[in-house]
Formats: sequence, C-alpha cells, structure tokens
Amino acid sequence: MNATLPASSCLIFSAAAAHVDGAAVQPLPNSRKIYVRGSRPDIRVPMRAIRQDDTPASSGGGTNPPVFVYDCSGPYTDPEVSIDIRSGLPPLREKWIAERNDTAPQPVLSSEYGRRRLADPALAALRFPALSRQPRRALPGKTVTQMRYARDGVITPEMEFVALRENLNRQAYLRSLLDTGAANEKMAARLMRQHPGEAFRASIPEEITPEFVRAEIARGRAILPANINHPESEPMIIGRNFLTKINANIGNSALGSSIAEEVDKMTWAIRWGGDTVMDLSTGKHIHETREWIIRNSPVPIGTVPIYQALEKVDGKAEELTWEIFRDTLIEQAEQGVDYFTIHAGVLISHIPLTASRMTGIVSRGGSIMAKWCLAHHAESFLYTHFADICDILQAYDAAFSLGDGLRPGSIYDANDAAQMAELQTLGELTEIAWKHDVQTLIEGPGHVPMQRIRENMETQLAACKEAPFYTLGPLVTDISPGYDHIASGIGAALIGWCGAAMLCYVTPKEHLGLPDKNDVKEGIITYKLAAHAADLAKGHPGAQIRDNALSKARYEFRWQDQFNLGLDPDRAREFHDATLPLDAAKAARFCSMCGPHFCAMKITQEVRAQESGTTGTTS
Amino acid sequence: MNATLPASSCLIFSAAAAHVDGAAVQPLPNSRKIYVRGSRPDIRVPMRAIRQDDTPASSGGGTNPPVFVYDCSGPYTDPEVSIDIRSGLPPLREKWIAERNDTAPQPVLSSEYGRRRLADPALAALRFPALSRQPRRALPGKTVTQMRYARDGVITPEMEFVALRENLNRQAYLRSLLDTGAANEKMAARLMRQHPGEAFRASIPEEITPEFVRAEIARGRAILPANINHPESEPMIIGRNFLTKINANIGNSALGSSIAEEVDKMTWAIRWGGDTVMDLSTGKHIHETREWIIRNSPVPIGTVPIYQALEKVDGKAEELTWEIFRDTLIEQAEQGVDYFTIHAGVLISHIPLTASRMTGIVSRGGSIMAKWCLAHHAESFLYTHFADICDILQAYDAAFSLGDGLRPGSIYDANDAAQMAELQTLGELTEIAWKHDVQTLIEGPGHVPMQRIRENMETQLAACKEAPFYTLGPLVTDISPGYDHIASGIGAALIGWCGAAMLCYVTPKEHLGLPDKNDVKEGIITYKLAAHAADLAKGHPGAQIRDNALSKARYEFRWQDQFNLGLDPDRAREFHDATLPLDAAKAARFCSMCGPHFCAMKITQEVRAQESGTTGTTS
Repeated sequence: MNATLPASSCLIFSAAAAHVDGAAVQPLPNSRKIYVRGSRPDIRVPMRAIRQDDTPASSGGGTNPPVFVYDCSGPYTDPEVSIDIRSGLPPLREKWIAERNDTAPQPVLSSEYGRRRLADPALAALRFPALSRQPRRALPGKTVTQMRYARDGVITPEMEFVALRENLNRQAYLRSLLDTGAANEKMAARLMRQHPGEAFRASIPEEITPEFVRAEIARGRAILPANINHPESEPMIIGRNFLTKINANIGNSALGSSIAEEVDKMTWAIRWGGDTVMDLSTGKHIHETREWIIRNSPVPIGTVPIYQALEKVDGKAEELTWEIFRDTLIEQAEQGVDYFTIHAGVLISHIPLTASRMTGIVSRGGSIMAKWCLAHHAESFLYTHFADICDILQAYDAAFSLGDGLRPGSIYDANDAAQMAELQTLGELTEIAWKHDVQTLIEGPGHVPMQRIRENMETQLAACKEAPFYTLGPLVTDISPGYDHIASGIGAALIGWCGAAMLCYVTPKEHLGLPDKNDVKEGIITYKLAAHAADLAKGHPGAQIRDNALSKARYEFRWQDQFNLGLDPDRAREFHDATLPLDAAKAARFCSMCGPHFCAMKITQEVRAQESGTTGTTS
Repeated sequence: MNATLPASSCLIFSAAAAHVDGAAVQPLPNSRKIYVRGSRPDIRVPMRAIRQDDTPASSGGGTNPPVFVYDCSGPYTDPEVSIDIRSGLPPLREKWIAERNDTAPQPVLSSEYGRRRLADPALAALRFPALSRQPRRALPGKTVTQMRYARDGVITPEMEFVALRENLNRQAYLRSLLDTGAANEKMAARLMRQHPGEAFRASIPEEITPEFVRAEIARGRAILPANINHPESEPMIIGRNFLTKINANIGNSALGSSIAEEVDKMTWAIRWGGDTVMDLSTGKHIHETREWIIRNSPVPIGTVPIYQALEKVDGKAEELTWEIFRDTLIEQAEQGVDYFTIHAGVLISHIPLTASRMTGIVSRGGSIMAKWCLAHHAESFLYTHFADICDILQAYDAAFSLGDGLRPGSIYDANDAAQMAELQTLGELTEIAWKHDVQTLIEGPGHVPMQRIRENMETQLAACKEAPFYTLGPLVTDISPGYDHIASGIGAALIGWCGAAMLCYVTPKEHLGLPDKNDVKEGIITYKLAAHAADLAKGHPGAQIRDNALSKARYEFRWQDQFNLGLDPDRAREFHDATLPLDAAKAARFCSMCGPHFCAMKITQEVRAQESGTTGTTS
C-alpha cells in the first residue's frame, strides 16, 4: 500500500532537528496570556485576555475591558516561554506530586516492552532526547488518585487550579466593567446578563469553589485527569457541572504521518481549544511518538492501549493476552497517559445482540475484543482482570475511559439492545473502579437521531451514577460524508446540553480518511462551538459573557474585536478581507453583505439617534 | 468603494453571450433523472435515482436497487434537456394555469417602473432576451391562489405533483427491494425501518395524498408557492407535515457580483438542494437580474421588495411611499416572484421595545421600516395597506413571507419583548392574508440559545395558527464568525425538529461578507443535513431510507455507493482520495483512518463469519 501514499507520510523524522511548528507559538490576535494566582505562588492558572478597542464616539464612546477566555494552549502562546520540544514543557505539577510523599521515582521502567524500546539503539534517532526522567509510581499501600484525596477531604493544588480556571476570572471582568466610566453599572449588568438555562437536573453552582471541585471528584461526578507521570499537564476537569470540554483525536495509522506531524497536530489542536488529546496512533513507533506528545503536552493525553497491544501480536486479535495488555498499560502509564480507553464492557453475551445490526461493531477496540472473546469462548481479559487494571491505574492516577465497544455506527443501530446492555455493564464496572478510587469516564455513542439523544444521556446517568459521559458526536444522520463534523456537531451540542461532560470531536474526514491539520482545526472549532452552545443552554454561569461582548462589538462596528472575540479570528478576518481587504474597511460602518445603504445595524443606530435626539447612543 | 473590490465584481455581463455554468449541468455521479408520472401525462415529477453496486460476495452478495432522492435541480441535471439560459426553462405549468380560465395575459406590464426598464435602450445588453412574454393576472373577480382552489375542494395538478414528490417513490423502492432475490423480505424490512419520531403534535401521514396536500393548504398549514408568472417552477410544498425545506439566499450587493454570477449561484444552489432561492440583490440592475433568475429557475423565487423600493428613492428610507412600494410589488409579481418578504409587523409601538437590545434591529427590512415610521410618526404603509397588498398578491398567487423585522441579532436579544410583540402582530396579519386566500409563511429568528428554541417555535405555532414557520438558522451562539453556518445549522436542526417548515440557510460568510459559490454550497449542504436530521427526528415516513442504504454500503465497503448516497459525493470522493487516491482503494476493505489491521468493520465481518461459520454473511 505504501506506494500509494502522499509524499508527506514518507518524511524522515529526526529527534535532533525536531522543532515546534511556528504557527502554534504565535499569540492569538490582540491576546495576552495572563495567569491568575492561587493560594500559593506556584498555582498560576493560564487564561487568554482579549483586548478590545474603545467604542467609537459615533456609537457613544467608552472603553471595553479585556475579555477572559479559557486557554488550552499551554506555554506555547506565552511569548515569555521559550519552547524547545526536545526538552519538553516545564513540569509544573512536579513539586505538588513530590510533596505529597506518596510516590517514588522508579529506577527502571516497570514495563518490559518499555525497557526493550529504551535499549534499542536503532531507535536513538527517533527517541525523545530528554529521557532521563524516572517514572513515578505510588508507594506500596498508597493510593495516589485525585479521587482518593478528594474522598479524604484533601483539596489538592490541582483542584484549586481547576476551580480558578473554571471561573474564568469573571469577577475581575466585572470589576473592570464597573471601572470604565459613566453609566457603567447598567452596562456591566447588560454585559453579564444571560438567559436562564435548562440544565436537566445538573447542579451547577454560581461560582466554582475548590471545595465544590473536591466534592464532585469524590462522588465520581467529575474527573481531574492527572497522571503523576505527566507533570507537564495543566489541571482541568471533566464533569457535567463544569464547562463542557472537547477532545481532539490525533495519531498516525499504518498508512500515514510521522512523529513530527503528530506533535504538530497536538500543538495545533490545543491552540484552537482541544481540552484533551487522544493519541490513537496505530502505526510504527507508537511508543516513541507518545513520549514526544506527552512531554510536550499541557493537556491530558488519552490512549486506547489495546491498539498498541494488537501491534505487539502483529494484528492477530486472538493472540492478545492479559500479560501483553498489562505490560502495555504499565508502559503507557509510566509515560504519563492520563486516561485509558478500555473496552471492558464487551461481554460474550452482548455479541449476539449485534447480529441484527446494520453496521455491526464499529469501535475498533470493541471489534478486537469481540473477536478475542469468540476465538477463546471466554469473557475478555479486560473484564476478568478489571480489578487488576484498577490497581495499575490507581498507582499512577491514570483514569478510566470505559469504552463503548458496542456503540452504534449508524442511525439504524442507535440505542439498540447491544449498546444498552454494554452501558449497564459499564455502570457495574464504574462502581468497581470507584471502589478502587480510580477516576472514570464513560464513552458514548456514535450515531443517534436527535429524538433519541436525551434518552441515551438519561440512561447513562442512571446506569453509571452520573460518572461523566464522554461522547463521540453523536452524528444525527449518516448521509453526510465529508460534513460529519457538522452532523456530529449538532448531536454534540444536544448531548452536551443534556449532560455530556466531554465531546469527542469528529473531523470532516470522518469515515473517509486521516485528518490533516486543517481537518483538525475544523473539527476543534466545530466542537468548541457545540460545547459553548451547550454551556449557554445549560445556563452555565458566565457562559454568555463572550457572546455579549462580541455582539456589542458587532453592533458598534468594531470589526477587529468581532474577529478577535470569535473562536477563529484568523478565518473571520480572512473572510471579511475576501470582499473588503482594505484596512479602512475595518472601521467601516457596514460590510460587503449588505453594503452601506442596507446595513441594518447602521440604520438602527440612526433610528436610535432619531428616537433619542442624540447621535448614535447605544443605551 | 469600488476601487477596493476584487476583479470578479467588475465583469461585464452580456446577455447575448450568457451561458449556463458547466458545473451545474452535469448529472450527479451514478445518478439518473427519473420522472414519476401522475394522473395526466404532463404531471411528471422529477427525482434522482442513485444506482448502487452489488454487495460483494465477501459480504454475502446481492443486488442493491437504486435509491430515490428529492431533486431540486430541475432540467439542468437531465441530459436529455438542452439548456440555453437565454431562452429560459420550459414553462411546465403554463397549460395548467391557462386551462383554469381564471387569468389572462396582460398586453402591457402593469408596473410603471417595469415599463420604463423595458423601454430603456441602455439596458438592452443586460436584458433577458426572450422577453416577449405577457404577464398573467387574475381575471376581475377571480381568486387564483392555490389556497382558494384548495378551499374550494379543487386538487390542482400542482397539488398532485407535490404529493408524488413528497412520497419519493418509496413504494417503488420497496418493490425493487422485494424483487432482489433471496431473503429479500427481511432485508427490505431492515432497509425501510426507522426509529419512532417525536413530532411535537405535528400530523404527518404515512403517505402523502393529493387530498392531504389540498387540506393542508386550505387550512394554511402549508403553502405551495406558485406565482402564475413563474410557470417554469416545479411545484413544491412548505409545511410542518411535509419534508423540511431549505432556502438559499443569493443576490449581489452594491459591492459585488454580476448578473451572470447570480444566475450561476442559483443553478449551483438548486444542484445541491436549495428548495427555494431568495434573490436579495440590492445593487444596480435588480430588475434585470431577477428576470434572468426567474426565467431559469425551477424552484420558487422569493424577494424582499422593500430593498428595490429603497433603491428607487436612493436609499432614503423616509422617502419611501406606498405608491413606490405598490409599483415594485406589481413589477415583481408580474416577473413571477413566488413569495415576498414583507415586514408589515413592525409597528411604532414595537420600536421602543428594541431600545434595550444589544444589537438593535438587524433585519434590513425591519430597520428600513422602523426608520420610516419614526420619520413619519405613523404606522408603516405595509401595515396600513396590508389589505391592498393582499389584493395584489391574490391576483398572481404570490405568497406572503411575513418578515420578522425585529428578529434578534444576538443571543442577548433572543425571544425578547420586541420579537414576541411582532410575532403577535404577524399572527393577526396571517388571519387577514388568509381571509384574502393568500398563502402565508412566517419568518423567524435569527439568534436563539438552544434552550429557548422550542419556546419560540411553540409561540409561533400558537400566534400564527400553524402557518409555516420559515426560520433564519437560528444561531445558537454569537462567537463563531466564519463558522456561523454551523452555529445556525445546530439551531436549524432543532427548530426543524420542533416544527419549522423551511430553514433559511446561513453561509460561512455570515456577518463577514458576501458568499461566493463555495460558501453557497457549504451553506446548502449544512442545511440539507440539518433539515434531514429534523425529518429523522420527527419520524417523517421514509426519512431513514437513505441513511440505511448509505450505512449498508459503508458496512459492505461499497465506497462509491457511500460517496454517491451522501449529500456531496464530490467532496466525499475527494476526501477519500486525499489519502488513498488509487482506484483499487475504492474496493479496499479498509480506509486510511484505521488502516487494514484496525478497521472495525472488517474485524466485525470476520467476527460474524466466525459466529456463523460462513464467510462474511451480513444477515
């Protein structure tokens, strides 16, 4: 097959020459990285402050304070940090982890495979250079998960970090609004106002406190993915009472892309708002690719370890064993993978339920495990060794993402008996995981028509006791290959509204091919949009601040602010420039859509002037 | 401003050299235009039959009959019709209209402006060449609307046409399924199966009969836009109990695009599924552009006549008069405009309700009328002359699309007092229109967060007695300039599910600039997807047939069929080819996403084979 590949996949990767993608380290337009300080100096929570222009005198004048937005991009967009991907990011959580005194660095890797890769001189040119790091592991008898700490009543620095992060500096924004001169109270109230939400029995507080974070983690309703071997990660939280998160999948397949491309995709994905990144690589050098990604990732990294296990048995599912899987899990946990998709809910008794399906089993992990079960006439080792897996994850604070191996791959198969049976099993496994203090996500469907999305969500909440639901889309129709980011974005917005905690993106290439960087961005922006729409619909406190600020800018013809407050300032500017490229047009009181005579906003400002007898007041 | 424009807008248009865009007349891949015959030989209802490959032997073999899909593209995609846009399309309804004996051709145009344009020699090079047509008008005392006929118990050929069209040849498909060899009954049942819908008290029958169409039109719950001066149009219906329709806006602005570009956009829009097209031109030569579009359009054309009226008074809203508007309406009605957006619901008393808005009045028509009202301290002539407007529309069977001049332009302003007050007025105007037997649509919002969409829809249904709701989006967030087709596509899917009858598309250029052909296509496909998702959610009979067929093709690795059954075969193929360009890959049992070892569908087929002891049976 290789002869048919585009040239890019044949690039030779050299660790010595590896460098960060230039496009990923530019600050976004008119944006400044700020850090909100916590109770100790090393709790510095990153946000992006978007500066705004003054309101033009013709619209009444006045200043517009910076708007703070959530920022997943890590140190890459901080001009004061110099990035060298050969060294990795600064290990911001290292001290927090060490001072808990419940883990210890391991002199050698615990995974046999990991040791073998490390010793292989042929891999030297590919290997992440700064690999002198000793992986940590819980001390005997210690449980080092955020869930255990939370249950013990401990608020970790990670928990305080996410509390500050979720509040998005809202109080500071309000103070700046009140400080901006005349009539500011009324304007502040307008800019902070939002529609009442419908949150379907979620329990979203007005302000996120560290104690609330702790309580949510303790009861399993949220997870804070934070492998002790990924100290570079900036803490974030996934749960229905927090901002809706999105995940971006990257990863090479046997048919394309190199280590450098995957690292680029990761930095690109977080620039546009990926809250977590899953490395779904299935090609060669999975181990080395992963190390590069984790060492350079400020967001939690997820994987599907069965993919690599399958590579180790040359793609023969029936030759998989618990021992191979176990070693793979430890190998990856010691690299720092923050959450693992594990398809432990695929039972033999579920498999016949897929027989009448239109599209069978469409989860790769699910189909691998189904094949194994049938070949061995036995329940899978993921299920029979589930408690052992819990023990491993517990020792590194890696989280479960219980895979929905039987998720529907077509509208026809949505919400069917196979899917529902597996979901009940995932609920049982969740309880076992929680007994081991292991943080747990539940993965969700695939393809569901709109009218059956809420039922799916409600079933998950009941079966899995509100463990966070992490859904792929779902796609609300099958007939849109090439546009499945949109078909799934519709479903994602809906299920996010109904209570899903994290939305796994789908790119325009879904069902057709491997996404490139453009596809990754298109998928991310679509999903940020869907997640934000869900937050607005739930009435998440402060969610509407950005909409209000952007709409005010739009009404006042502050074109630059309108672009910059959007999810993708580059595209907004490019589209505007396509018809009105001159700088002067950025101050114009109209655009090319309607032209100067037909601009409704311009006419309305004239109407208001006429009404009030003044020139263009906006109050 | 003209100096800043891209070169394309400066193209000189020449009627003599006008020709159809080559891209618009190619049949779609593996597709054949078919015509379903009605009760008389001249009722020939177009559909597109998508041929499918056989199921490969490795998946059990078998034939797959053609799938029939709705086809808006008119004669352009029929290779047996030769297209010359200088002659216009064949007037397929001419005989039906003439044989009703209630209209007569007018020897001269009734509009003074129309006569002036016709007489102006300077316009000869721009004018549609075949303009010897005499416009028709109702005979004195006759009411020639489909609504009147329906109320009189008459099933017109137009009504029978749409009944056949809505059923999509479903029975023929079922018969072919049953004819395709062994095990066909079970397979037919599978391929016809769909999820139960949630239709929110809609009344969708299992089969659309001509009598049902008549009854729906009679009670105003659906409209069949069919100006007697647009005999080229293929009848279609808009109502919540029918397939959800979409509209594409085209039109030049003062800042760009030529007549040829607009005709190209129209043929391009219907190729991809625009059910109606609105010509929102505001530049020079509106009159001539419109004539070209209507003579060549197989779909109903809508306009906003106040735009042209405003051009006639050099953009000075306060100088608009009833007489100018009246002449414009007659001018356009005699050209064949099928529905008119008229912002008659903007009352003086509503205007103060917009004072506290974030973005004021964002409808162009709404802001023009508000300005007029304030300048004259009087209710608008659209409101005071509403009965006169009804009389004009009645004489040509032009329909109302009662404009929501006060629709919200931001999430902040959604569902506010101004919008709701206008909606009540639109309800009152609907009753007046219905008294005059004038078919009526109601236009809807703009920007609405998800949790308030249903409330909006329910209010419209109550206030306007189920007159079809025709919504712009709505956008579910403001923060996505450059991606507002998606932000609005989410809202469109939701409101279509809740009962909206037609969704007005939004392109990626919304808020930023004038859409080009790529944007038009992107907007259309997004909205076809949203409309289809709504039909699935409502449980519209047969809606899932295409999803089932595509998913079966996907599962059987029939790549070409998967592409061709989708909304955009060209893009699907292009995306697939980006990683696997060889023809051989179209027969491959995997794609580049997962590669050969990790293809879940391939593994599942192996699992099924393992289970059943045979090779890859799919039953």
